[in-house]
Amino acid sequence: MTITGATRFVPLLAHPCRHVRTPPVFNAECARRGLDIAMVPLDVTPEMLPATVEALRHIGNLAGMVITIPHKNSAAALCDRLTGAARLLGVCNVVRREADGILTGAMFDGEGFVAGLRDRGHEPTGRRVLLVGAGGAASGLAHALASAGVAKLFITNRSPDKAEQLAEQLRAAFPQIEIRTGKADPKDFDLVINGTSLGMHEGDALPVDPDRLTPGTVVAEVVMQPDVTPLLAAAEARGCHIHKGIHMIEQQIRLLVDFVA
Amino acid sequence: MTITGATRFVPLLAHPCRHVRTPPVFNAECARRGLDIAMVPLDVTPEMLPATVEALRHIGNLAGMVITIPHKNSAAALCDRLTGAARLLGVCNVVRREADGILTGAMFDGEGFVAGLRDRGHEPTGRRVLLVGAGGAASGLAHALASAGVAKLFITNRSPDKAEQLAEQLRAAFPQIEIRTGKADPKDFDLVINGTSLGMHEGDALPVDPDRLTPGTVVAEVVMQPDVTPLLAAAEARGCHIHKGIHMIEQQIRLLVDFVA
Repeated sequence: MTITGATRFVPLLAHPCRHVRTPPVFNAECARRGLDIAMVPLDVTPEMLPATVEALRHIGNLAGMVITIPHKNSAAALCDRLTGAARLLGVCNVVRREADGILTGAMFDGEGFVAGLRDRGHEPTGRRVLLVGAGGAASGLAHALASAGVAKLFITNRSPDKAEQLAEQLRAAFPQIEIRTGKADPKDFDLVINGTSLGMHEGDALPVDPDRLTPGTVVAEVVMQPDVTPLLAAAEARGCHIHKGIHMIEQQIRLLVDFVA
Repeated sequence: MTITGATRFVPLLAHPCRHVRTPPVFNAECARRGLDIAMVPLDVTPEMLPATVEALRHIGNLAGMVITIPHKNSAAALCDRLTGAARLLGVCNVVRREADGILTGAMFDGEGFVAGLRDRGHEPTGRRVLLVGAGGAASGLAHALASAGVAKLFITNRSPDKAEQLAEQLRAAFPQIEIRTGKADPKDFDLVINGTSLGMHEGDALPVDPDRLTPGTVVAEVVMQPDVTPLLAAAEARGCHIHKGIHMIEQQIRLLVDFVA
């Protein structure tokens, strides 16, 4: 990869940013397609996000921005327009600057996550799903899992109101799916997903009680660093199938590059 | 070069930015030293420079910023502190963020330019020099040429007041050198330097009348793109020694990396 004066810039906005794993995968995909685009992660605090997005949107060679934790909600609020799941949920993980300068936000975490599950042989259609979290990443996953036709979606979240608000949005769009919130027992589900940042930092609580996991359950992560989170390690020790956070990125890179390039 | 979450960011601020040639040379030097740093050029308009620098200074993984045309004067004004030639001239081409968050600006164009001349066998000490331009780049060159002990420095500029202001600053620091401004005949000099952006864009006027160049004169450029500017082509046709803009960067990359790394 050679960066020149003609290279277009795609910042990845994150805080912190040491754990991000998108840049090498994104840059390799651009190189494979012959696109002269470079992604560099930028560690931007929540307080600085509005001023940073405002400065970035005026950069002549900006192609777009990729957004990750904790900015997925607030970046959506800074966009001029949202499409698809981003519009429904008010979260985005990628922003494109259109020819007329306006910023369009989209959300591919969910689509990437579902594609990752399928790629690893874990078909979500018709399954009973427990999702932990109702923030930016989890909302995208919930929408894509509902689109994929899961039988049942249970959303559990530290703040129950936020889970119920997400559930309301989804019930309106997917009336045929049983969507519930509150406290759930992991043993009642085929697929248990951590959609929070728990597991990224040492000393984080586990998102679910691993003693309630049963062998054969698929336990999946959105956290990419560490590669095997404490939840995945505990799940593996209990005979569950584990599905890493990195698979979500591997499958959505194509969608992100399509969107900004 | 692989960009990861641990990579530090060095934007190169320019407008336009397609012509810049620093990024591949800078990134290669970082790679050679084992530094995990990536430079990406950002096309920032003069109006957006203050807001952009303010946003960039808060980015957690920023190592520093490299500054080029037309931002060398205004970036210096945005620094909290200037060192060396940058302090004397009020221009900078590199900014470092210190541990306490303040921005320190420095100017290595001149030092790099003189090192480039020497590297190519064109010793400036004791020579008669005609410099076209009195802006950010030219000021740095003038200071370094005076430091190197040229015999005579003639500064010619579209706006004569700006040339005279630069000459005044230099006379105070280098009283032993003959420093003049106004209109000059290129034939009276050993070394003729374009320190303006003339030659970067098609249709630009030539910085000096090529019919007044005499064989054996060294004609040098700060413009890097095109590699051989119309001035250099005309000078070569008249039997002058030509010295390309790229040599200034080749020799100062080491100084820039030392400063920000």
